[in-house]
Amino acid sequence: MRVIGLLTDFGYKDNYVGVMKAVILNINPKVNIVDITHSVTSHSVSEGAFLLWKSYRFFPKDSIFLVVVDPGVGSQRRAIAVKTKNYYFVGPDNGVLYLAVKEDSLKKIVSLDNKNYFLKYVSSTFHGRDVFSSIVGYISKGVDIEILGKKNSDMESLEISKPLISKDRIKGEIIYIDNFGNIVTNITKDDFLSVFKNKKFIASLNGRNFSEIYDCYNYAPKRKPFFIEGSFSYLEVSLKESSASKYFKARIGNQVEIKLSNVG
Amino acid sequence: MRVIGLLTDFGYKDNYVGVMKAVILNINPKVNIVDITHSVTSHSVSEGAFLLWKSYRFFPKDSIFLVVVDPGVGSQRRAIAVKTKNYYFVGPDNGVLYLAVKEDSLKKIVSLDNKNYFLKYVSSTFHGRDVFSSIVGYISKGVDIEILGKKNSDMESLEISKPLISKDRIKGEIIYIDNFGNIVTNITKDDFLSVFKNKKFIASLNGRNFSEIYDCYNYAPKRKPFFIEGSFSYLEVSLKESSASKYFKARIGNQVEIKLSNVG
Amino acid sequence: MRVIGLLTDFGYKDNYVGVMKAVILNINPKVNIVDITHSVTSHSVSEGAFLLWKSYRFFPKDSIFLVVVDPGVGSQRRAIAVKTKNYYFVGPDNGVLYLAVKEDSLKKIVSLDNKNYFLKYVSSTFHGRDVFSSIVGYISKGVDIEILGKKNSDMESLEISKPLISKDRIKGEIIYIDNFGNIVTNITKDDFLSVFKNKKFIASLNGRNFSEIYDCYNYAPKRKPFFIEGSFSYLEVSLKESSASKYFKARIGNQVEIKLSNVG
Repeated sequence: MRVIGLLTDFGYKDNYVGVMKAVILNINPKVNIVDITHSVTSHSVSEGAFLLWKSYRFFPKDSIFLVVVDPGVGSQRRAIAVKTKNYYFVGPDNGVLYLAVKEDSLKKIVSLDNKNYFLKYVSSTFHGRDVFSSIVGYISKGVDIEILGKKNSDMESLEISKPLISKDRIKGEIIYIDNFGNIVTNITKDDFLSVFKNKKFIASLNGRNFSEIYDCYNYAPKRKPFFIEGSFSYLEVSLKESSASKYFKARIGNQVEIKLSNVG
Repeated sequence: MRVIGLLTDFGYKDNYVGVMKAVILNINPKVNIVDITHSVTSHSVSEGAFLLWKSYRFFPKDSIFLVVVDPGVGSQRRAIAVKTKNYYFVGPDNGVLYLAVKEDSLKKIVSLDNKNYFLKYVSSTFHGRDVFSSIVGYISKGVDIEILGKKNSDMESLEISKPLISKDRIKGEIIYIDNFGNIVTNITKDDFLSVFKNKKFIASLNGRNFSEIYDCYNYAPKRKPFFIEGSFSYLEVSLKESSASKYFKARIGNQVEIKLSNVG
Repeated sequence: MRVIGLLTDFGYKDNYVGVMKAVILNINPKVNIVDITHSVTSHSVSEGAFLLWKSYRFFPKDSIFLVVVDPGVGSQRRAIAVKTKNYYFVGPDNGVLYLAVKEDSLKKIVSLDNKNYFLKYVSSTFHGRDVFSSIVGYISKGVDIEILGKKNSDMESLEISKPLISKDRIKGEIIYIDNFGNIVTNITKDDFLSVFKNKKFIASLNGRNFSEIYDCYNYAPKRKPFFIEGSFSYLEVSLKESSASKYFKARIGNQVEIKLSNVG
């Protein structure tokens, strides 16, 4: 069975996600639909793009990703279907698909113009249901994406910020905060080691400092924050068995600075 | 594979929904279970009825809907299975199934009396697991609902309130608020146009006024509330990329009034 | 299709659960994955163990349970796969699997040592994805668990506390609180009847008293708390159509005391 990965900012209160699944299954009952998450911060295209990028690679080849973080729904923003080396992606052309598509190698982009593949009645507020889910149902049945609309040569781009790295300092920022309160920075472990290998450091975030890095939560003491390379392949600021996010009053975009320590 | 749509007020904290799915799969492993939502406000039969009504039509023909919003569980309230023109519905007979059943044309109602189709041990607090899920498993295998109990001629009814419409005024109310903070009224766009077509209007809600209606979020300015025809086919009060519900301190049942504007 | 039950403390914000499902489906697309819940209190091994124990029995024979409540991830704590009379269980060896495994009769335990069945790159923070989901994928395809690592003779244990029962008194405690605010105690109805059958009683919890027990929510008056035998087969403290948990400011571990009433 074809696997479809769903990623939206719809949350779990409404019937919106359930209805999208119904539309897909009405077109192709032989699919396996996986919720990536529906808790993307409302209208946060960059958060959606980040989570898609960090998820798609674990799915079976030929999986189809339906991503609806779409503040511009109903406007002239394009809706697109994209074929990459191993996958298909469907969503608004606002950058939310970009990081995953770029990494997996773009093969083909079409804009979704062919109304024969939409639901009969298309609302102006819920293209996730009336356009995107319908399109995904047809792609999962083997419809060539070139039938869905005009070929395009490019798509909206979006990049994860890079930290500033100098010989004794790294300035990065928070790009995601998870449900446990782990704070994901845009600094990789390689970035960190390029400056601080075998050296003492002081990191600061929202006026609070720490100076430890561990390979695993278990080695860390309780109640003292530390860096750890997390499962997104970035350094995360964590607190053992509690929320670093609460401790630091962390928000996405807050600056994280690491300096050489003069102690010792 | 037969599709089963689940709609409850159980939330996402407990194992209740997971266990209901287990009971269904234990009877029939060849079903595809779709969560419509489990965030119906606790014990709100009318909210459950509304969301079922606005969801069922997108599902494949012959789908079975299991709806558990059941404040009277364990009492003498009837449990029913209903066949309509295109679907099956199972749940308590408290009105929660009514709007969908009425729209899709009632064919047959039975009360769930035949304990051979329940789990062996039936608790007094969780018929969603011990009665309803078991029944749904058997219906999905093709068991005729007439075997499940006595035929009934009627069921509990429940209606969505209608707005009061006069020649220069509409008085409606809030019937649902979604996860984005969009405020769903019981006023349709046709209701609105019947009074205000090509005319200026002032709408008021909880002491705050607005006077715009748009076809799409994108045309609206930020920070100014407006009407838009939403995906439930009712007028919604929205704020572009933020929560109208917070702005208006909106609650289900609050009155929304629209008057002709004397300006200009 | 093989059924896989997932139980974690990952919540619904992140992509963690979706990615675990992707890893499983990439190894075996012919499985039916059921979320038991992902709302276990962060790092609460005992709550995870309780919910698994109260869920597993409703699943089809040969279902595989993947349980990730794993504060010791990345440390030397063992990861295990367990075969019982009717099921398979995979997770950290920290007690979270114990109650279910014990009840269903342990057949075989292996520690997960054979890296051929892990993902190629194993992070130190997300074994749910890199180790456990991969292992579950292979078990679902029929891989004998003895191939996965060294056989073990025992596993970490964990018990639900028992109430103290004397001839005129029961002292129990709160072991779970559900989404409706129902307060689950560790006192069974049989415990209760062994002391208070046909007798008046006074129960107290956090300084508030009550003295009723009902067979069904519907028989209870509103706004007066009462005992009821809940679907976990323990006495629960409930309030009809509202939250007993809020009323009593209840927390897991709070003491519930029942005494003979001298009234009358």
